[in-house]
Amino acid sequence: MNEPLSLWNQTPTRHAILDFVAAVTTPGSPDFVPPAERIATFDNDGTLWCEKPGYIQLFFAVERLKELAAADPSLLVQPAYKAAVDGDLAYFEGLYPGNLPELMKLLYDTHAGMTQAEFEAQAYAFLCQGIHPRYGRPFMQLAYQPMVELINYLEANGFKVFIATAGGMSFVRMVSEEIYGIPREQVIGSNITYETRMTETGPVLFRKPGLVEPLGDGPGKPANIELHIGRKPILAGGNADGDLHMLWYSQTHPCRSLQLLLRHDDGEREYAYDAGAEKVQQLAAERNWQVISMQKDFYKVFAFE
Amino acid sequence: MNEPLSLWNQTPTRHAILDFVAAVTTPGSPDFVPPAERIATFDNDGTLWCEKPGYIQLFFAVERLKELAAADPSLLVQPAYKAAVDGDLAYFEGLYPGNLPELMKLLYDTHAGMTQAEFEAQAYAFLCQGIHPRYGRPFMQLAYQPMVELINYLEANGFKVFIATAGGMSFVRMVSEEIYGIPREQVIGSNITYETRMTETGPVLFRKPGLVEPLGDGPGKPANIELHIGRKPILAGGNADGDLHMLWYSQTHPCRSLQLLLRHDDGEREYAYDAGAEKVQQLAAERNWQVISMQKDFYKVFAFE
Repeated sequence: MNEPLSLWNQTPTRHAILDFVAAVTTPGSPDFVPPAERIATFDNDGTLWCEKPGYIQLFFAVERLKELAAADPSLLVQPAYKAAVDGDLAYFEGLYPGNLPELMKLLYDTHAGMTQAEFEAQAYAFLCQGIHPRYGRPFMQLAYQPMVELINYLEANGFKVFIATAGGMSFVRMVSEEIYGIPREQVIGSNITYETRMTETGPVLFRKPGLVEPLGDGPGKPANIELHIGRKPILAGGNADGDLHMLWYSQTHPCRSLQLLLRHDDGEREYAYDAGAEKVQQLAAERNWQVISMQKDFYKVFAFE
Repeated sequence: MNEPLSLWNQTPTRHAILDFVAAVTTPGSPDFVPPAERIATFDNDGTLWCEKPGYIQLFFAVERLKELAAADPSLLVQPAYKAAVDGDLAYFEGLYPGNLPELMKLLYDTHAGMTQAEFEAQAYAFLCQGIHPRYGRPFMQLAYQPMVELINYLEANGFKVFIATAGGMSFVRMVSEEIYGIPREQVIGSNITYETRMTETGPVLFRKPGLVEPLGDGPGKPANIELHIGRKPILAGGNADGDLHMLWYSQTHPCRSLQLLLRHDDGEREYAYDAGAEKVQQLAAERNWQVISMQKDFYKVFAFE
């Protein structure tokens, strides 16, 4: 067997992860946790794949807004459609983090009304073919390889790993198996509501405007974890203030637990930013969460490097 | 290895199940289905455990209504509290199937406002200690053993088995591992909403009045399956009209699929009733679904027989 976590540098972070996994999986260890309780949850945008210069799903929604505006130019009186056609990403960035629910509503409503099968085909095509503006690679390739390796390592050690995304659950599900080896049902998060319509050939699922409550961000993350999993994670990973409830929630587990906070400090290979992560970084220091420095801890960031 | 499905009689039903499982799991078979697609979903009340003379969760809610009325007798002006104190189960039965949403709201609201941990402790204690009025056994023991055996058999053949209940998801989760060997996260269904409240010791989950949409019954079952699983099942099992959408939905899968409809025709060992299953029985005949006769196909019904 290869050495585990070979895409991580030999730093205290890597050591802390290996130490934790050994402690909770070694029979007889005072920290041993039975397999059924080995639940890990990771945020997706900015934790498992790149979220700059905008959420990947935002690029997808912008494409859709442009399509809709081309079919009906009267939509251009609405600022979101105009911003999409003008390529004004800053307009959408201005909506979050303060207005995340409004942004999410926009993302969802642009893909409402169609069947779920139509949405899935569009989302998958976009993730394979849409090109990231900086890296010139399909969005599918924007996953952080050390995090993918960590997920695989946890699974090999009897963990069940979930993605708890604030973004669209069914968007991420289209590629979760291919990118992370995580089956669709282990991707949980914000999502549009579904409606079953009876047709002559049987029931068909349509996407309805409106979100299933709660939004999978901030306090909505533990709520969503309970809704979809029904257990508290012993390991949680995030990168932004929207993840702090989930990280702290995992730390209230009676068993030994690990909290990982990815810090974006690598402007050369990725992006360097702390905006939107001020609170969680302070909590991490106060509560002894393990901070991952992308610059120091990642031997490699993307597969295409 | 023991012969599979030993709790089933040697009937065409058992043969149809074995034949289906062999066809979809044998490499090289024209009907072979890869493991990731081997999703099975079963209704719970009346399909996996006894639902007469009332839903098990209804007995739980009645206990709670009595508790609440004892603490505050002014509640007795409300018919549900009065019926609970009077032991008038017929009042609650009168609410369904026509008024299932109202009944569900009642079931949920009686256990709202508390923490999820408090609910879980109460639910688990009730399922272990509450006694079924006819069998004189704890409710936990009311699972149909041939169905438990079928679930285990499917899992041994690479299926991932989910319970899609119209009843309370977190109620069933308390015992799903113990009774069926199904982990909590594979129990999906109707559920109350959760709220994360920050306390000095971290985030705590509370139960809020109101249901996560949709109710996991009828057209809500395929919608819930999409929300929690994101794949169409190739095998679905139910017993009542509220299951017909799910059964038909599984039959729209492009791979070979199997639909199982349990018929309650065994008044001696269990109950004999077709009420509330008229539509699904007609559809089963029209669409070639496999009807399970409890009387003819089950060698044994309960573990305590």
